[in-house]
Amino acid sequence: MSSVKVKKKKGLLKKQLEAVVGAENVDDSASGRLVYSYDATPNYQAMPDFVVSPANAEEVAAVLKLCNETGTPVYSRGSGTNLCADTCPVNGGIVLLSKRMDQIIELDKENLTITVQPGVITKKISETVENEGLFYPPDPSSMKISTIGGNLSENSGGLRGLKYGVTRDYVMALQIALPNGELIRTGGKLTKDVAGYDLTRLFVGSEGTLGVITEATLKLIPKPESQKTILALYQDIEAAGRSVSAIIAHKMIPVTLEFLDQDTIRAVEDFAHIGLPTDVKAILLIVQDGPKEIVDRDIHQIAEICRSENAVDVQLAASEEEAEKLATARRSALSALARLKPTTILEDATVPRSEIATMVRAISEIAEKYDVRISTFGHAGDGNLHPTCLTDARDEDEMQRVEKAFAEIFEKAIELGGTLTGEHGVGMTKAPYLEWKLGAAGIEVMRGIKQAIDPNGIMNQGKVFAEETRERVAEAK
Amino acid sequence: MSSVKVKKKKGLLKKQLEAVVGAENVDDSASGRLVYSYDATPNYQAMPDFVVSPANAEEVAAVLKLCNETGTPVYSRGSGTNLCADTCPVNGGIVLLSKRMDQIIELDKENLTITVQPGVITKKISETVENEGLFYPPDPSSMKISTIGGNLSENSGGLRGLKYGVTRDYVMALQIALPNGELIRTGGKLTKDVAGYDLTRLFVGSEGTLGVITEATLKLIPKPESQKTILALYQDIEAAGRSVSAIIAHKMIPVTLEFLDQDTIRAVEDFAHIGLPTDVKAILLIVQDGPKEIVDRDIHQIAEICRSENAVDVQLAASEEEAEKLATARRSALSALARLKPTTILEDATVPRSEIATMVRAISEIAEKYDVRISTFGHAGDGNLHPTCLTDARDEDEMQRVEKAFAEIFEKAIELGGTLTGEHGVGMTKAPYLEWKLGAAGIEVMRGIKQAIDPNGIMNQGKVFAEETRERVAEAK
Repeated sequence: MSSVKVKKKKGLLKKQLEAVVGAENVDDSASGRLVYSYDATPNYQAMPDFVVSPANAEEVAAVLKLCNETGTPVYSRGSGTNLCADTCPVNGGIVLLSKRMDQIIELDKENLTITVQPGVITKKISETVENEGLFYPPDPSSMKISTIGGNLSENSGGLRGLKYGVTRDYVMALQIALPNGELIRTGGKLTKDVAGYDLTRLFVGSEGTLGVITEATLKLIPKPESQKTILALYQDIEAAGRSVSAIIAHKMIPVTLEFLDQDTIRAVEDFAHIGLPTDVKAILLIVQDGPKEIVDRDIHQIAEICRSENAVDVQLAASEEEAEKLATARRSALSALARLKPTTILEDATVPRSEIATMVRAISEIAEKYDVRISTFGHAGDGNLHPTCLTDARDEDEMQRVEKAFAEIFEKAIELGGTLTGEHGVGMTKAPYLEWKLGAAGIEVMRGIKQAIDPNGIMNQGKVFAEETRERVAEAK
Repeated sequence: MSSVKVKKKKGLLKKQLEAVVGAENVDDSASGRLVYSYDATPNYQAMPDFVVSPANAEEVAAVLKLCNETGTPVYSRGSGTNLCADTCPVNGGIVLLSKRMDQIIELDKENLTITVQPGVITKKISETVENEGLFYPPDPSSMKISTIGGNLSENSGGLRGLKYGVTRDYVMALQIALPNGELIRTGGKLTKDVAGYDLTRLFVGSEGTLGVITEATLKLIPKPESQKTILALYQDIEAAGRSVSAIIAHKMIPVTLEFLDQDTIRAVEDFAHIGLPTDVKAILLIVQDGPKEIVDRDIHQIAEICRSENAVDVQLAASEEEAEKLATARRSALSALARLKPTTILEDATVPRSEIATMVRAISEIAEKYDVRISTFGHAGDGNLHPTCLTDARDEDEMQRVEKAFAEIFEKAIELGGTLTGEHGVGMTKAPYLEWKLGAAGIEVMRGIKQAIDPNGIMNQGKVFAEETRERVAEAK
């Protein structure tokens, strides 16, 4: 198309969008578009044509219908905290913001549910329900700024996944705008509902490739009565891994069971100054919650287990404030590491928890092999590790080695019965590797679903489905 | 096709099936086919052409491929305990049995998982893991004879859904044979896995319309240390409903919170002779589990709440045996009611738990309006009720009134924010009503998925998707 025609087409689309959401909610300024040209993932950037902010589900549906008819790409976006380039508007088109849909619609104390719009900040949900003695367990590290819409699209995890599961496990009902402009509702305030396919969980974690979630009803549980935190210190990573397995084998499921390696401990301490011991090889941060007498009993037993697995020290957080400080420190691990080098690449290869020690060791060996710096921390109880590469995007040679190292890490995770991504999503960063996990036949099933629901392929182009699958490192050897 | 041609085609298919699974595993005898011409649902029967029993996933895949190529309908089936005619071979073709795939493949105590073939009896899984101090919570009433494959296809619920959720919540990984003859694997021994769409949960509850589950890895949790049971007796159904809400509002989630009306109590007592009080209007059977001190505390509080909500008596089960007797009695409610009249139609309209009392009252009024006998029992904590009609299929006039009554019950459930079916599935019985819950656009999404995965429509024909949607009672008035 000639540039004149393109300009005319864009002008028409702008008018049509303005007719739906109002002129003040369609931004095509260079600065406005620049802000939404990237997300929290390093090295991915592309300019959208318009940034559109609808006020309600009907406007979202109308925008999708318009985009569907005009073949305009749509990238729905909350706060853009994802780490797989899922909200990068890679082919131009529209970034669809949830910022004007940020209301808590209802807190239903009789049915223990909260109904929210997608733009509500996750932490606001937690705080709102905790004020009522209730609990929304999913707590992605970004919860202070992430939106629940983003959490739903990515099926976010967090630090409490071991005991309480992930976002998916707390979604009871959705309202969804489909690419064809229809609005559908799935589920209800119902523990049990088998009326038709589980569309709720199909859309949760579909990374904005099938439709836009415009409302969600989330399940709440009673707030645990008390909570205790311990730190177990190790001079031996294997011993930390064995402790994780031993705790579970003793039939205790802590709410949080986090692992930090020495690199991460040092970075976090340097950042947060909370007195973490920087001379140990690994730390387990362990939290249990529940009725006070049970928490006391469990924490005592867990401490015993850690000691018997060669923890050099086990420290009980003296107060709630100290426990909160430790949790905040752990949540800051990415920020802390990110200060050390110009570029930080955080992955989330995940393995069965019995394979944690093997995987941590493999990551070290792979980092050494490719001469790159990888620190590892993560949710050890889930087997959900965050190998984090500290590098510099300007160093092309190093970046190539980084990519090879991560490919090998993915391959190792899958070999151990794990997955490419535990909680960050596929997006662009892991799309070329997805077939390693799902096989060609699995990808075909996904493509069929995508084609059925979004036949014109307008939703989040360039994500999840790769044009080419990367060759396996092992095969390429 | 002429009958000669049909016979020839069937003869060829038989040979092809025998080549895959062995001649002894293809049954086309009249008696063999008759056995699998119906399931636990009254009034549905059709003869299959062949009953085929594959030995492993590869044979299942090969049978599906063959059926796909020849356009032969396939109905996969476990023990046939479903209550929505889901395993009735309505268009002839093949009943695919899981009886030869009945092995527990692995109990992984480190990762708290069990991996099973689809033909394993649910109760065997429970017993196996409980012997190791572990727990598989889903406990459909039919668990003594139902297969886990059937539970997965139907996303079965049970008596512990309130606290522990349903089958779906315990599935970590699947192997699935697709209609095209491919085998895929989804998930892993992973609490967190966001590599691609949630195919695991798409196939769970898809009622055999998309593929055949050939292996499943299920999540286990530590076995609760102790358990206590109480019976609360009421002369007022509303008071029982209010007790349910009040217990939850006090931030306690019992493992079981069952409701039985007087009709059901009398039938169960007549059947089981365990000394249930038959002079009360309603009973709540309440179970709490967990650490002993917490169970004692909760049960004490729950008893107080029931009394303050006008329970005429609250009785603590004196021993584990007595508690087990009560649970068994509740599980026998369907069998007990089924003895009273020639035909028993059990439904599972489900509402948010705050609407239990309203729904129970509505069911009574509807039964009276249509002059039919409906007893109600069910999982009050989930809002999952089982209105059960005692009738006689030979009485055509009455059967028409029964159908109208259930249509109105479904409509009322949806009006109250509920669903057609909490745990039984859509199958044939609820297919004509499904659009009432999902809307035309929701059904279209499901049809798209079905078409993408099973383009020749061989899997469980005549189920879930109705040829015609029933008119709404309210509109027809």
